[in-house]
Amino acid sequence: MDAVRIARMSAETLDVGAHVGAVTDAEHGAVTSFVGIVRDHDPDAGGEVVALEYSAHPDAEQKLREIAVSAIGETGALVAVSHRVGRLAVGEAAVVIAVAAPHRAEAFEVCRAVIETIKTDLPVWKRQVEADGTTAWKGLGG
Amino acid sequence: MDAVRIARMSAETLDVGAHVGAVTDAEHGAVTSFVGIVRDHDPDAGGEVVALEYSAHPDAEQKLREIAVSAIGETGALVAVSHRVGRLAVGEAAVVIAVAAPHRAEAFEVCRAVIETIKTDLPVWKRQVEADGTTAWKGLGG
Repeated sequence: MDAVRIARMSAETLDVGAHVGAVTDAEHGAVTSFVGIVRDHDPDAGGEVVALEYSAHPDAEQKLREIAVSAIGETGALVAVSHRVGRLAVGEAAVVIAVAAPHRAEAFEVCRAVIETIKTDLPVWKRQVEADGTTAWKGLGG
Repeated sequence: MDAVRIARMSAETLDVGAHVGAVTDAEHGAVTSFVGIVRDHDPDAGGEVVALEYSAHPDAEQKLREIAVSAIGETGALVAVSHRVGRLAVGEAAVVIAVAAPHRAEAFEVCRAVIETIKTDLPVWKRQVEADGTTAWKGLGG
């Protein structure tokens, strides 16, 4: 079975429990997860954020799968990863990653590698909507 | 509100989604989790495991809270952590940790620190039940 259990750009609410469940079995003793949450303020500018609008390149889902495969490498890990598109309210999950590995060191390393590479390489853009009506496009690396 | 949202020794099934939910808010942009799963074989001895029986010292819950507080340090992180006691079947979660932090580096570091310190310092013991009826006590550090 494919070691990438989920690799999805999704317009639906992301469920961390479902991602953890998708990688959990009796052969992998360690499961890690990462959830990126829409914050209520912009750490760069300090404005009050009310929503983020995510847009993705059509190839984003394929790129997400490649990021997972690359992070898994030779570790024997399993990965489930989803990234939201569309309008997200403050407090909602923008990205969810779950990783299972035989041992915890690899489970942490692969999970960290997936989120770091998403931040630099996944072709998604976000438009930040602030309380005063200001909007601003944020590129990769946000 | 207490930065340690949950610190519990539990005889009930552990729910990673509930732990993630207990630390998630709009001020903490990064949430990590760790789940330790009962594996179907003993990595040391190679026997087929059918169950683990966890026993805890009466002070374990207080120690679990201290481990969380110590891992949080000055990071501003929030932690929810539970450890099972009693008999666990293969594939069940023995420990669940969720950590929220303003940024992902701290979220990963605090989560890793909590599980590493649980492995060395939490006064729990496990008796391993193998398919052939053999049982063996496993101490801390397992």
